[in-house]
Amino acid sequence: MNRAKLTELIRRKKSFLCVGLDSDITKLPECVMNSEDPVFEFNKAIIDATMPYAAAYKPNLAFYEANGLKGLNSLKKTMDYLKNFKDECFTIADAKRGDIGNTSEQYAKAFLSPEGDFDFDAMTIAPYMGEDSVKPFTVYPDKWVILLALTSNKGANDFQFTEDKEGLRLFEKVLKQSQQWAGKDNLMFVCGATQASMFTRIREIAPEHFLLVPGVGAQGGSLAEVCKYGLTKDCGLLVNSSRGIIFADKSENYATVAAQKARELQEEMAGYLK
Amino acid sequence: MNRAKLTELIRRKKSFLCVGLDSDITKLPECVMNSEDPVFEFNKAIIDATMPYAAAYKPNLAFYEANGLKGLNSLKKTMDYLKNFKDECFTIADAKRGDIGNTSEQYAKAFLSPEGDFDFDAMTIAPYMGEDSVKPFTVYPDKWVILLALTSNKGANDFQFTEDKEGLRLFEKVLKQSQQWAGKDNLMFVCGATQASMFTRIREIAPEHFLLVPGVGAQGGSLAEVCKYGLTKDCGLLVNSSRGIIFADKSENYATVAAQKARELQEEMAGYLK
Repeated sequence: MNRAKLTELIRRKKSFLCVGLDSDITKLPECVMNSEDPVFEFNKAIIDATMPYAAAYKPNLAFYEANGLKGLNSLKKTMDYLKNFKDECFTIADAKRGDIGNTSEQYAKAFLSPEGDFDFDAMTIAPYMGEDSVKPFTVYPDKWVILLALTSNKGANDFQFTEDKEGLRLFEKVLKQSQQWAGKDNLMFVCGATQASMFTRIREIAPEHFLLVPGVGAQGGSLAEVCKYGLTKDCGLLVNSSRGIIFADKSENYATVAAQKARELQEEMAGYLK
Repeated sequence: MNRAKLTELIRRKKSFLCVGLDSDITKLPECVMNSEDPVFEFNKAIIDATMPYAAAYKPNLAFYEANGLKGLNSLKKTMDYLKNFKDECFTIADAKRGDIGNTSEQYAKAFLSPEGDFDFDAMTIAPYMGEDSVKPFTVYPDKWVILLALTSNKGANDFQFTEDKEGLRLFEKVLKQSQQWAGKDNLMFVCGATQASMFTRIREIAPEHFLLVPGVGAQGGSLAEVCKYGLTKDCGLLVNSSRGIIFADKSENYATVAAQKARELQEEMAGYLK
């Protein structure tokens, strides 16, 4: 999905909500556990319920890989199901990959290739290994790299804020340097909602790039703050909520409650989009 | 496998060679392509041929994920096969994962848990997200985290050499800081053979940690240089070669030639171990 279509989708749905399908099998509602593939059953119900309010879906691959081959099969079925909503949502493989060039090519093929099992629109990538680890993800037309810049976790403080001799922090250097590798039409950045005080600075360096913003909800980030400093004329944000939506209720009403939670966020977002 | 057993294994085999099972399906010899699972067929033959000379095997997950579910199935069969050689080799998932704490727990479960589909001895991890992204990989007994420090690719220059205000480079900071998260008995570092001039400095900061060293062979690193500056009294090195061994020959003799290449490296290593 290219930038024009993504922006149009956000305007049409009045939403830049990304629903994180972090479908930990140990946390699913009882009522899905007897089905043949509980994770897929759960995802399907969550997708159906939240589709009116969501612009994007983001399975974090860890929760699928943790179940081995069965888990990857649940992921494939989820992605096949999402193909029924092709112009209705953007899909992100939260994979945080990155390796030497010939190896990154293989990861790109695995998750972004239209001929592969998954065919995601975008994929998260770790920047530590630099340019040749990132570029192979930029070659598929209308597909996106989403580079980790400033993450939402406590460990972000360990290296991402390290200042170089000119006072440039590592996450700022990542934001700057990577713009030589790809442009705003196929490069986004992960910037955590828990880092809202940094969004002004992030927008100085990357005024037009889309930002994928995790950390609203369970991790404590504020949507209002993120929007105040992060929104652009093209929206420029995809704000993710995972546990706060998909695990808001563990009863048989889980999908209805997930829809309510997604709708609350969507309505708040519609206000900011005006 | 704990440190004592790994060291004993290296002494017994007179080898610290790690064979990289980067079994790209598009590069396999013709003669395996008619079998039901060419990648597993190839891996099995390579393992059988090189086992006398190798201390470790390291499948890079990208080459398996690129084939989707079928690829992961080839990986599982490969790991099941390697269980026949339990005390004969150390196994490394070259995965370069890392995510927020609750997510890293899932990746650890996927690749290190003895109850999982794979049950690797060790796993490579990217440090960008800091402590809480790394620690969940340290909880399985006798299993190892292998943290990226100084990689073998050109892109290593983009961020890993960035100096902070005290003149400490990012890779040095990673080497230092991570030693607060785990000790030399379950933490190794990736340090590329193409960076041999840095090994003296690496050994100043991490005098006893095992280093996983890619980049000998196709990438141009020198084994002699790496050993000169990197060897410790417990060896402290696992030196990887992938393409230089597994794709040295594309005829029906591929496994025999792979064994020759592995043996040449092992014999050179035996010399350095004296």
